[in-house]
Formats: sequence, C-alpha cells, structure tokens
Amino acid sequence: MTKFQLTILGCNSATFAYNRHHTAQLLNIHDRQYLIDCGEGTQIQLQKYKVKIKRLNHIFISHLHGDHYLGLIGLLFSMHLSHRTEPMYIYAPNGLDEILTTHLRHANTQLNFPIHFRATNPEKSEILLDEDEVLVRSFPLDHRIPCCGFVFEENHTQRRLQIDLLPPAVQPYHLVALKNGEDVEIGGRIFRSEAVTLPPKPNKKYAYCSDTRYNEAILPYIAGANLLYHEATFGSSDEERAAQTFHSTAQQAAIIALKANVNQLVIGHYSSRYEDVTPLLAEAQSVFADTIAAEEGKVIEIQNCEAMSN
Amino acid sequence: MTKFQLTILGCNSATFAYNRHHTAQLLNIHDRQYLIDCGEGTQIQLQKYKVKIKRLNHIFISHLHGDHYLGLIGLLFSMHLSHRTEPMYIYAPNGLDEILTTHLRHANTQLNFPIHFRATNPEKSEILLDEDEVLVRSFPLDHRIPCCGFVFEENHTQRRLQIDLLPPAVQPYHLVALKNGEDVEIGGRIFRSEAVTLPPKPNKKYAYCSDTRYNEAILPYIAGANLLYHEATFGSSDEERAAQTFHSTAQQAAIIALKANVNQLVIGHYSSRYEDVTPLLAEAQSVFADTIAAEEGKVIEIQNCEAMSN
Repeated sequence: MTKFQLTILGCNSATFAYNRHHTAQLLNIHDRQYLIDCGEGTQIQLQKYKVKIKRLNHIFISHLHGDHYLGLIGLLFSMHLSHRTEPMYIYAPNGLDEILTTHLRHANTQLNFPIHFRATNPEKSEILLDEDEVLVRSFPLDHRIPCCGFVFEENHTQRRLQIDLLPPAVQPYHLVALKNGEDVEIGGRIFRSEAVTLPPKPNKKYAYCSDTRYNEAILPYIAGANLLYHEATFGSSDEERAAQTFHSTAQQAAIIALKANVNQLVIGHYSSRYEDVTPLLAEAQSVFADTIAAEEGKVIEIQNCEAMSN
Repeated sequence: MTKFQLTILGCNSATFAYNRHHTAQLLNIHDRQYLIDCGEGTQIQLQKYKVKIKRLNHIFISHLHGDHYLGLIGLLFSMHLSHRTEPMYIYAPNGLDEILTTHLRHANTQLNFPIHFRATNPEKSEILLDEDEVLVRSFPLDHRIPCCGFVFEENHTQRRLQIDLLPPAVQPYHLVALKNGEDVEIGGRIFRSEAVTLPPKPNKKYAYCSDTRYNEAILPYIAGANLLYHEATFGSSDEERAAQTFHSTAQQAAIIALKANVNQLVIGHYSSRYEDVTPLLAEAQSVFADTIAAEEGKVIEIQNCEAMSN
C-alpha cells in the first residue's frame, strides 16, 4: 500500500509550554514530503524525531501568526548551509515573501536554491498543487488575520487493469486507453474499459484546519476526509474566549468532524492553560468517537475506508 | 557579593546539531538581566533551564545572521502574550527594526509593550547603556556582515568609607563628598578623601566576541576582562576555512585571551563538524590554560581577581 502518513512535530498554541512546540506537521504521501506550518524550532523537532527531509519540496503556511511560521526562516537557512539546490515551493499568505526577503537582505545571504512563492487566497478555495497523483487545495478559514486550511488528496484517475480478461494480442497503447476509460478494439473484438478494468484506487484525503473559529462554511472542503486535523485550542467552558480569539473548542472541532463525515479527527493547537489535554480529548470524543489528540512525534497512518474495513 | 553570572543557553554555530542550540546567553548583573544574542529556540531554552526573565529589559544582538537572532521575534511575541508592559530596549545592527516591524505588521499585532531600538555602530565603539553601576559598550568585530561585540562592566565609582576613621560629628553630606573623592572639613579639621576611604570596589567585566575573524583590533576593548567569551568555530586544522568564513579557531581565541590579559576564557559557537568539542578545548587550553568550553545550561560566576585570589 502506498504511504500516506502524518507526523506531528508541534501541537501547542501561542506560547511554548510543557515542552510542547508550536504547530508543525510533516505529511508523507507516496514518499513525497509536505511540511504544514513551521513553528519555531521545527528544524530541531525534525532532528529529534529523526525525520529526514530530502524529499521535502513544498511548504504550506496557514497564516502569519508567529507560532505557525517562525521556524521557517531558520529551516531555509539550514537547507542552504546543507547545500540544497532543488527549488522550494512555499504557499503562504501574502507577506511571507516580504518577511523572507527582509531577513535574507539583512543577512546578506542569497540561498543556494530558488524559492517559488505562491500567495494563498484567503477568500476562496484554490488548487495549489497537482503533481504525481497528489492534489493540494487551500480553503479559507475564519481567523483574525488571513488564514487558509489545506486539503491533501490522492488523485488516482487511472482505472486498474484486470489483465487476465484481455487477449494475448493486447498492445501497450491498448492498456493506456483502457486505463483512461476508453474502449478498444483488439483482433476485431471490442473491449469495454468498464468491463476489463476496476475503478481507480480510492483517493485518501487529509484536511488541515488551523487556526479557525467554528465555521460550517469549511464543511464542503473537508467533507469525507480520511483524517481531519482541526484546532481545539480551548475546552467548552472557554467557548466565549474561543470565539473572541477566533479559535475553536474541542467540542466544536468534533462537531465539524461529525458534520463533515470524516473518518478520524486529530485535535491540537492546545492553549497553554492545559498541561493535561485529556479533558479536551474526552470532550471531543463524546461528540465524535474516533478522535485522537496530537502529540509531538506521533505518526498517524492515514487509511482509506476500504483499507480500514479490511 | 553582588551577582555577576552568565548562563549559556546555546553554543552551536550555523545549523542545529547534537542537541546544541544556536547562540544565546543570559547575563545577570546585580539581579538585572541582559540577553546576548537570541538564536532560534531561546525561549524554549529559558524554560528548559528554568530561567525567569522578569528582570530582562535589555537585549543585545551582535549581528543579523539567523543563528544569532531568529529566536527574538518569538520571544517578544511570548512576552506580549504574557502581558508584559515594561519597555524593552534592543541593541542590534540597523535592519533588525525593519525585520521586527515587518513581522508585526503581517501578524497584525501591536505589542503590549514599547520597544526602544538602538542601532549599534559597526565602525566604532560606543556606550550603549549606563545604568545603576552597569556600563555596556559595543565594539566592532570582523565578520562578513556588520557585527558588534559587547562589554558589560560594573561601574563602581564611589570610594568606600572607612567610617571608624571619621569623628562623631560627621554629617551625611560629608559622607557623600568623601565617597565622591572630595576632601571635607569637620570641626575645623581637614579629612582627605584618600585618607579615610578605600578605592571603589573593583569592577568586574565580561566581554563577548561572536562572530569574528582573528583580529587584534579588539584587544583594547576586551583588555583585562574577568571573563572573555570568544567564538571558536573551528580547530586549527581548519584555520584557512575560519579566515574565509570570518570565523576563528580555538587557538586564535586563546591567543586573543592571552594578549588581552583576561582572567578566564569561554569558547563556543562550535561548528557542526565537531560532535565532541574536547579537542577544541584542549587546543585553546594549550595556549591559555584557564579556558572553559560553553555548554548549554552552564552557569559561570564571574569573579574579580581580588575575589578569585581570596
């Protein structure tokens, strides 16, 4: 089975506390790596958890609050010092480009590798990346400053051949056509694609929502995800404070998971008022049973329903 | 005895390695705190070593390479979230003000406390701070970009009264004059300040040099320091590389310590090529015996010669 795996590198909000770092996650899809947010110390966390990032070419930053991107500059400097030459693609709100160039200018440093910056759109969902059967979309979250969530989805479009249903005279160009859903003629006989192939592999989907107020407008984007990460900064007793600060409670995260009909929920971005996050987890589980709590170093295998039911 | 104490928070150069963080030091003089450089993760290191920073009002940044200041923005954000209101004074090369305001603007955040920024002068030595018997001077280092060292020095100017040499008729204003070195007349008799007072308490001095090539032009500024921190990025076998990258070897750091006639040397800013820094320490000690190697969490009590010989 192809890899679709999430590693939690940081899960605390705002201030560093209880040895919990700021938000950062590394997603591995088919051995390609995608970094999602990059709080201070992310490069240290990567070393701590022995995560090699040789196949990391795309970094996604949800918004420009320090706890979501302050580790990025140091990470890029370290890649530079490690003689990286491959381009790096960075997707972030407008402004991160100015921040990066300001740092580089004062350090009088030109990176060994090019950075391709794409500003995310905080107003509407957009496709950010479409490569090798991986599709990444952004969508607007509801935060104090422009903020986007991200959906990472496999994009298997080719039908799967049932080779034993085909005659020996089949040619490679027949196979290509059949995988693309086209019918072919072999030795005067018509072979319908639907008859000799199975549908494409089911696509796994990971949805990332941080930081955001409770907002059902995000449901269409995250619907049916195999795994949903949704921030749960507070418990329900602080629901008012959550709304004021454009954050969510654990219960609200679970309601979103339920309404979006996802398979599994992982909560994180805990406020420093919670040394023990068990109550937040319990609160979410009471609404949506299949919830787990983000912990640094935790690796979550994202499975599709077919695999899960096997 | 009044406190004059240095805590090492980070001692690695360039890239994070072997669990060694980037440069940061906290100096405590008479229970006032001074942060010197602030590499990524400094706020995390402060928590790790349980260093409270309630009396930290002055931050000194030597230069704008990321490994010397990338932790500053997060530290200031955390102070903001902890409801700090006291002004913070930051001394750094021109440009750090632009970097900070760029981050704050994109975070749409106005800190709860004012920042007073003073640009250091990479061309000549200047007094940066003169408060409560502590004097801080900058001086030019020899690095690839503008870079300053710092000297922190007690500034005891008042002579110490020998009260038993004075008559009962002595008045408070006599004491003030005598402490300031002025002679006084008490009951028709002249008392010479020099005769009834001892010289001011000896002033302790800490000199900080990072990052710099070997350069004897710094000797006048650091001469006679009780403790000298001098970078020692490389060993002597990499002397050429040290010069090319505007860094020093451990041997060069020790030669500087010897020529500046300091009491003690602490080396740091180790290249990631050295997992074990014992060879660097041995190299320095062979030139200047009283050398120690910076280690994270190490606390160094800075003593004056008088106290040391007692």
